[in-house]
Amino acid sequence: MNLILTLRILGSLLLFLGAALFTPLPFSFYYGDGVWSTFILSAVICFVVGGLLFRFCNSPKELTVREGFAVVSFGWTIFAVFGALPYLLSGAISSPLDAIFETMSGFTTTGSTILTEIEALPQSLLFWRSLTQWLGGMGIIVLSLAILPMLGVGGMQLFKAEVPGPTADRLKPRIQDTAKMLWGVYFLLTMVETLLLMFGGMSFFDALCHSFATLATGGFSTQNSSIGAYDSSYIDGVVTLFMVLAGVNFALHFQILRGKAREFFRSEELRVYLGIILVATVIIMIFNGVGGVYRPFGENLRYSIFQVSSIMTTTGFGTADFELWPVLPQYLLVLLMFIGGCAGSTGGGMKVARILLLFKHAQVQVFRLIHPRAIRLVKLGNRPVDKDVLQSILGFFALFIGVFVVGSLLVAASGMDLVSAGGAVVACLSNIGPGLGSVGPVDNFAHVPGFGKAVLIICMLMGRLELFTVLVLFFPSFWHK
Amino acid sequence: MNLILTLRILGSLLLFLGAALFTPLPFSFYYGDGVWSTFILSAVICFVVGGLLFRFCNSPKELTVREGFAVVSFGWTIFAVFGALPYLLSGAISSPLDAIFETMSGFTTTGSTILTEIEALPQSLLFWRSLTQWLGGMGIIVLSLAILPMLGVGGMQLFKAEVPGPTADRLKPRIQDTAKMLWGVYFLLTMVETLLLMFGGMSFFDALCHSFATLATGGFSTQNSSIGAYDSSYIDGVVTLFMVLAGVNFALHFQILRGKAREFFRSEELRVYLGIILVATVIIMIFNGVGGVYRPFGENLRYSIFQVSSIMTTTGFGTADFELWPVLPQYLLVLLMFIGGCAGSTGGGMKVARILLLFKHAQVQVFRLIHPRAIRLVKLGNRPVDKDVLQSILGFFALFIGVFVVGSLLVAASGMDLVSAGGAVVACLSNIGPGLGSVGPVDNFAHVPGFGKAVLIICMLMGRLELFTVLVLFFPSFWHK
Repeated sequence: MNLILTLRILGSLLLFLGAALFTPLPFSFYYGDGVWSTFILSAVICFVVGGLLFRFCNSPKELTVREGFAVVSFGWTIFAVFGALPYLLSGAISSPLDAIFETMSGFTTTGSTILTEIEALPQSLLFWRSLTQWLGGMGIIVLSLAILPMLGVGGMQLFKAEVPGPTADRLKPRIQDTAKMLWGVYFLLTMVETLLLMFGGMSFFDALCHSFATLATGGFSTQNSSIGAYDSSYIDGVVTLFMVLAGVNFALHFQILRGKAREFFRSEELRVYLGIILVATVIIMIFNGVGGVYRPFGENLRYSIFQVSSIMTTTGFGTADFELWPVLPQYLLVLLMFIGGCAGSTGGGMKVARILLLFKHAQVQVFRLIHPRAIRLVKLGNRPVDKDVLQSILGFFALFIGVFVVGSLLVAASGMDLVSAGGAVVACLSNIGPGLGSVGPVDNFAHVPGFGKAVLIICMLMGRLELFTVLVLFFPSFWHK
Repeated sequence: MNLILTLRILGSLLLFLGAALFTPLPFSFYYGDGVWSTFILSAVICFVVGGLLFRFCNSPKELTVREGFAVVSFGWTIFAVFGALPYLLSGAISSPLDAIFETMSGFTTTGSTILTEIEALPQSLLFWRSLTQWLGGMGIIVLSLAILPMLGVGGMQLFKAEVPGPTADRLKPRIQDTAKMLWGVYFLLTMVETLLLMFGGMSFFDALCHSFATLATGGFSTQNSSIGAYDSSYIDGVVTLFMVLAGVNFALHFQILRGKAREFFRSEELRVYLGIILVATVIIMIFNGVGGVYRPFGENLRYSIFQVSSIMTTTGFGTADFELWPVLPQYLLVLLMFIGGCAGSTGGGMKVARILLLFKHAQVQVFRLIHPRAIRLVKLGNRPVDKDVLQSILGFFALFIGVFVVGSLLVAASGMDLVSAGGAVVACLSNIGPGLGSVGPVDNFAHVPGFGKAVLIICMLMGRLELFTVLVLFFPSFWHK
C-alpha cells in the first residue's frame, strides 16, 4: 500500500470538497440565514488540510488496485468528517458523532437523519444537506460503473459501463470520459425534476433540494414530514417517477439519450426491477384495500406505489406511515429493503441483478441434481456469467447477510429492541433511510445510543461501497507488500 | 421417474410404520389408558395400504437418483399422514391438519406442537409422539450421512460417512452397513441418557420419552412446561450434555467408539460447533448477569447453557422463557436458530459446516481482491473443498434465506404479526420447535391459522430434507425422461 500516494489523492478530494462548500453561500445570502461564515470557515479548513496533503505527499509511483480501495474507503470517510464541519461550526448539531452520522448519511445517499426538527435548520445548511446526497450520488455512479468493476468488487465487472465513441478502441476506457457522460445524464434528470416540481408549486429551493435527494436516491427532505408535507398527488407522482428512474442503471439512461430505447428495455435486470415494483405495488394495494387503509383506488395506488418505489430504490422519502399498514405489506417492504435498486444506479441494497443471479444459481443447482450430466450455465440477458463473477456475487450475498446480522447484534447490544435494531441496520446498510420500529418512517435516529450510531455509520459506508471495498482494509496483508 | 418403483418402496415403508405402531401397546396396557385399539387399527390401515402398494407395484428396474428423491420426500410425507392416525382415531386431536402438523413435527424432529394441554394425552400417545421423533432422527442420520451425499444434495458429499472395515474395499459402501453402525451409536446414547435421567428421579417412561426427543434433537416433552417441569439442575445438566452430543456428526461418535478420540477432536466443524456454544453461552451469561435475570453464577450458567444448547442443536426443550431475557441474548438465540447443528447429526438448521464454509468463501473473496494473482482455496480441515460442492453450499444458503423469506411472507399473510411469523418459520425450517412472539418458548402453535400451519408443515419437511430434495419435485423435467 502506497500511503503517500493515497494521502495525496485524499488531499485533492478535500480541495474539491472545499470548493463544494462555497455553493450554499448564495442561498445563505438570499435567505439571510446568517451562517455564511460557517461555510467559508469550513472551506478554509478543507483547503488548508487538503492543500498540505497535496503539496507534501508526493509519490512518483503509479496508482494500483490497493490504493484504489484505500482512496474510495477513506475518501468517503473524510468527506463525512470534513463535510460535517458546517453543522458543527454553526451549532445546528452539537455532537460530533451526530454531525458525522448526518453527513455520512448524506454522502452515502442513505437519508437516515438524527434531526428532530428539520425545518428549524438555516436554508443554506438544508441545501448543504441535500447537496451531500447529490455529490454522493455522483460518486456512486462512477464508482459502480467505472471504478469497482476495475477493482473486481462483488461481481461489479458485469456492469462495467461500455463507453461508446472515441474511447471504445482504446485499451483502457478512461474513467473520466465515462464519468462525464454519466454525470451529464444525472445532471439533466435533476434539472428536469426540479422544473417539474416547480411546476407543481414547489419553490425553486425546495424543488432543487428534493431533486438532489431523489436522483441520488438519498431521501433527505427540507420538511419534517418529507414529501407528505406537500400533500399533492402531482408531486407524489413526479417524485415516484424520478425515484424509479434513479434506481435504474445510469448506463441504460445514457443508451436512451443516444436513441437506443430497445437496448434499454432489453436489459433483464431492468425488466425484473420494474416487475418487482409492479407486483409489490399490486399485492400491497390488495392488502391495503381489503384492510381498509385506503378506500378509493386512486388514493391506494398513490400511497402504495410511492412507498414501494421509495423503499425499493432505497430513497426513503415518505408520504405515509407504512407501519400502520397490514403485516404483509410491511413484510414485503422489508424484503424490498434488502433487494434495492439496479446495479449502476444510485440505489443501494444488494441490487436486483445480484438477487436475480442468486435465484438463477439456485435454480441451476436444483436442475443439476435432476440432470447430473447436463451442462447449464447461469446467464444474464443471454450472456453466460463467468464462474468467478458468480462466486463473487454469492460471496457478496453471504457477506451482506453476515454484516446485517453482526450489525444488528451490535446495535441491539447498545440497548435497542430487536425489530428496531434490525430495521436500523438494514436501513443504513442498504442506504435507505427510515427503518422499522423506533426508527420507522415517521421517526428519526436521534435516540439511538452513541455506540449504535457509530455502528450504523460503518454500516452506511460498507453498504454504499459494496462491502468488499471496506473489508479489504481489515486484512493485514492489505497493508504490506 | 419410475413411479411404480417409488410406490413399491413407499409401500414397504408403510409396512415398517405399521410395525412401529405396535410399540406403544405395552404402555397402553400398563397404564390402562384405553387407546390400545387405536394403535392396532392404525397399524392395520398401514399394513393394508402398504401391503397393496408393495404387492401390486412391481418394477424390474434399478433404483436411480430420481426415485431416491421421490422416496425420501414422499416417504417423510406419508409417515406424517399415516403416523397421524392414532391422534385422529383416539380423538386426542380432532383436526386432521393439526394431527398432521404434530406428526410432521415429530418425524422431522422439529418439536413444534399444536397441543395446549400435553399432560392430558394418554401415555401411549405421548410415547408415540416421542417415538416419531426418535424414528425421524434415525432416518435423518442415514439420510444425511449415506443417502443425500449419494444424491449430491447441498454439498452433503463432504460429509459422507466413511465406512471402515469389510466394506471399505467395495466400490459402493452399502447404505445398510453404514446405517447399522450409526444406529448402534444412536441406540447406545439413547439408553445411556435414559439411565442417567432415571438416576435423577425420572420415571422410566418419562426418561425414555425425553431421551428419544433429545437424541433426535426433537424437543417433544411429556410435560406442559418441558424439562423445566422437573426443576432439577442434575436433569438440566444431563439433558444439556446429550443435546450437545446429538448435535454432533454421528460418524464422529462412531470414531470415538472405535477408540479414535483424536479423530473426533480434529474435526474442524466440531470445534467450531463447540466454540459457538461456548461463546454464545458466555455472552448471554454476561448480559443475563448484568440485566439481573439470574443472580447466582451457577443458576445463570445452568439456564443460559441449556437454552443455548437447546436452540443451537435445534432440540427446542425449554427450562426458561428466553423472551424475558435482554434483547441481545434473544437476538443471539435467533442467530443460532439459523445455524443449527453439525452436518450428519440429528440437528437441523443450515449446519455449522455450511456456515463455516460460507465464511471462508467470503474471506477468500476479499483475499483475492488484494492478491489477484494468488491462488487460495477454501479448505475444511486441511482438505480443499471442491468448487462444485462449494457452489452447491452457496446455493443452499441462498435458498434457505429465500425459503425463509417466502415462508414468513405466507405465514404473515395468514394473519400473524411480523416477529411471530418469522419466528414460526425459522423454528419449523430449522426444525427447532419454539419460535418467537406468539409461538415463543412458553407458547404453542395451536392458534396459528390453518393456512399458516400448512405452510409450516412444508417448511418442516423442506428444512429437514435439506431443501433440494423437496424442491426437485417441483421441476417439471423431474417427472419426464
